[in-house]
Amino acid sequence: MAKQKKQPRPKAEAPKGFRDYFGSEVTERQEMLATIAEVYRSHGFDPLETSAVETVEALGKFLPDVDRPNAGVFAWQEEDDGKWLALRYDMTAPLARVAAQFRNDLPSPYRRYTMGPVWRNEKPGPGRFRQFYQCDADTVGSGTVAADAEICGMLSTALEAVGIPRGDYLVRVNNRKVLNGVMEVAGVLDPSDPTRFEEERGTVLRAIDKFDKFGEEGVRLLMGPGRLDESGDFTKGAGLTPEQCDIVMGFMSAKRATGTATAARLRELVGGSLIGAEGVNELEQIAELLDIQGFGSDRIEIDPSVVRGLGYYTGPVFEAELTFEILDEKGRKRQFGSVSGGGRYDDLVKRFTGQEVPATGVSIGVDRLLAALRAKGRIGASHQGPVVITVMDRDRMGEYQLMAAELRAAGIRAEVYLGNPKNFGNQLKYADKRESPVAVIQGSDEADRGVLQLKDLVLGAKLAQEASLEEWKSQPAQVEVSRADLVAETRKMLARYEVK
Amino acid sequence: MAKQKKQPRPKAEAPKGFRDYFGSEVTERQEMLATIAEVYRSHGFDPLETSAVETVEALGKFLPDVDRPNAGVFAWQEEDDGKWLALRYDMTAPLARVAAQFRNDLPSPYRRYTMGPVWRNEKPGPGRFRQFYQCDADTVGSGTVAADAEICGMLSTALEAVGIPRGDYLVRVNNRKVLNGVMEVAGVLDPSDPTRFEEERGTVLRAIDKFDKFGEEGVRLLMGPGRLDESGDFTKGAGLTPEQCDIVMGFMSAKRATGTATAARLRELVGGSLIGAEGVNELEQIAELLDIQGFGSDRIEIDPSVVRGLGYYTGPVFEAELTFEILDEKGRKRQFGSVSGGGRYDDLVKRFTGQEVPATGVSIGVDRLLAALRAKGRIGASHQGPVVITVMDRDRMGEYQLMAAELRAAGIRAEVYLGNPKNFGNQLKYADKRESPVAVIQGSDEADRGVLQLKDLVLGAKLAQEASLEEWKSQPAQVEVSRADLVAETRKMLARYEVK
Repeated sequence: MAKQKKQPRPKAEAPKGFRDYFGSEVTERQEMLATIAEVYRSHGFDPLETSAVETVEALGKFLPDVDRPNAGVFAWQEEDDGKWLALRYDMTAPLARVAAQFRNDLPSPYRRYTMGPVWRNEKPGPGRFRQFYQCDADTVGSGTVAADAEICGMLSTALEAVGIPRGDYLVRVNNRKVLNGVMEVAGVLDPSDPTRFEEERGTVLRAIDKFDKFGEEGVRLLMGPGRLDESGDFTKGAGLTPEQCDIVMGFMSAKRATGTATAARLRELVGGSLIGAEGVNELEQIAELLDIQGFGSDRIEIDPSVVRGLGYYTGPVFEAELTFEILDEKGRKRQFGSVSGGGRYDDLVKRFTGQEVPATGVSIGVDRLLAALRAKGRIGASHQGPVVITVMDRDRMGEYQLMAAELRAAGIRAEVYLGNPKNFGNQLKYADKRESPVAVIQGSDEADRGVLQLKDLVLGAKLAQEASLEEWKSQPAQVEVSRADLVAETRKMLARYEVK
Repeated sequence: MAKQKKQPRPKAEAPKGFRDYFGSEVTERQEMLATIAEVYRSHGFDPLETSAVETVEALGKFLPDVDRPNAGVFAWQEEDDGKWLALRYDMTAPLARVAAQFRNDLPSPYRRYTMGPVWRNEKPGPGRFRQFYQCDADTVGSGTVAADAEICGMLSTALEAVGIPRGDYLVRVNNRKVLNGVMEVAGVLDPSDPTRFEEERGTVLRAIDKFDKFGEEGVRLLMGPGRLDESGDFTKGAGLTPEQCDIVMGFMSAKRATGTATAARLRELVGGSLIGAEGVNELEQIAELLDIQGFGSDRIEIDPSVVRGLGYYTGPVFEAELTFEILDEKGRKRQFGSVSGGGRYDDLVKRFTGQEVPATGVSIGVDRLLAALRAKGRIGASHQGPVVITVMDRDRMGEYQLMAAELRAAGIRAEVYLGNPKNFGNQLKYADKRESPVAVIQGSDEADRGVLQLKDLVLGAKLAQEASLEEWKSQPAQVEVSRADLVAETRKMLARYEVK
């Protein structure tokens, strides 16, 4: 007997919250990333690819709703120097590190785009994964709101480029400074001591960001005495009085029919707050710049209810929302919601260098966007498999390979069946599973006569469902052609279905 | 004063062994991946993307030269269930997991390609990083050597597709079964008890794989009594006698002028070993299949010195080597070496299911391949920046943005300068750093007259070096054009340099 001790078999499972992507799921994402990248590139943004791994200290702690140290990220300790490393949770923190590390070499302003997976160590749920793709564009080193406006316009352009028609999305813009102005009016921001009430403001921010989830009443509880959820868990509130809550809620519902009217209403709400007035001015400038370029309120609008959960935003914040309804997993209609967010984060690079480096940017959640387009049936319709060359005669494998090579040289995707060729039915079943449009068949008798059979599998499948026995017997889906005409005849057959 | 305690600033550094990729480094890699993917796809391979994270048990321990548990990988423990997760160290282990997990849904044979980063927790060195890209193709569920031959031919095609001309590379093929036959002859393999001498064979395998590094003498020491390196570290040997070593070394140098002659020589060496004879047969079949398709020994050859370090190979193994010399960091000429490797691994899926699932595949080390092409000056020559619209008048930002939008709509990459516009020289320096071909200049006087200035920055830079003062003063690199002709005139200027 073998001397090895039997080890239990490993489980063939992706870790919880991770998944695999097959075939067109991969290529559709690639295409979307390439389309967005081209929009970014056309705006002068240059590619950057950082590695998936950063030091924990460089990443910082900016994820919302995360209380434990290192929570929210996948982290581990280096064996030699004890440093903590982690997988990036977004693309902004690594950019801030790069902007600081290469500040003497990069052009300023530095416009960059990047795409790739990010990781969140969160509880996975249905449709919620711990690895997902982001495609970001940021401008580092520009303090003007023209940079924010550019990002908003580019986001709108990118969404339309990937196939979201105008009217099916909305880029909503707000400004943290306006919110700070409102906080000042409500008495939870003291301009002479910005660190006072910091915790309360953080709680208010997170409360507002949950408006969609908990509604006005829930938000008021979170801003005030705290909220008890269905499971009996209690979330501590910010301790605001009902009057203070009124002021904040007034801000949330300040949206009017036009951008100008909304700005006017906001100006009333921020009253004498300098920071608040500055925020309103910025919103007006952004609206004006976008207006000149023809981005009307059917594409981009000022909306005071946009907050964004991340802690590092300092000025304009934006969010792209899909406005159409989809059916959720339980068949209920719901708004698809946010697919992109961003804003200005003037202090992130400063963390490293101590010097002011203003920055603004946006992140498109590509996996969510793909899910939306699939839910609407806009992508994922047809998938084309390769031509399959069947194996009638094992000894003539070289000749079959040659046929495949000829087809490929003519730009036709082709493969030889490499399973056990004994059962010919299995070969056709295989071709079917591969969504193959055409099968090539050549036995030794056909080889002797210098011919082969081409089987139109699309027509064949149709006939199998519809044809009478007579029709079926005449085998209209199969033609005998000269071996020399393999490429030309296959091409003719593929042309029936306008195959790419 | 602020109540917060001052935290030390984080270091703006990528973790040791990780790096950032900028601009054309990113796009060149993207292009190479797309080119290789297209070759794989044309052969009927379908894309698969698994996540970066796997359970440690699913990954298994197959990295060479790794003695500690979990060494070689970046791993961490899940908080809730205590499971160990890790970043994938290659693409083969995740594929084996997928093939087992989805065995009832995938076509069989399953041809798949995949591309992306892998991570190795190794000591970083010059040019050696802990994250790098691989682009793999594998066929799962086919035991025929036609699958191995297909992979070898496809590898050759892919290398030529990315710009390695015939003659500058060689795909070398060997077979682990032949090596096992030689081991049997040498007395370190007992067919009736395959687990006997397992450790010795592992040591011999690793020794052979280091032939390039240590030469014959070093390999003989590692197979025999052990080897003391320059630093005084001792590596334990396999304990073979000089006679046994002779047999193995004979195998290493069995290569002859033609594949047929090499196979004949190998057949002598494996003597009566059944497994060895099977290996030689397989090599002959692979050579024959490739020969029919025109892959001569100038592209693919049988070479008994190829071993591959990974422990999981069971049959044919292959390696692609670049045969040209490059200068290393110290200016010394050296062979570039291996850029791709693979082989048959019939037992990897069985780890999960207990059922035999033969498989074979190849991995192209895309980052090494890019380094080789850069070292040869074949890529990375020219990089084209965007047209830069300078800002003469802050109040007319919207109009500048409109110019950029017009250029983009015409397919011309363009951006507005978003730094502080006060110093115009800085704007031109910025355009220079961006490798911008054309700058657009419009002050308020020009705006009033309905014109703008186009500055040819390529010609400008040339003149700055060569022109006389008179020539310079006439400003031939700058033209005044009508605002309405912005796109047409810019296009004309770009056409001078055949800008993409």
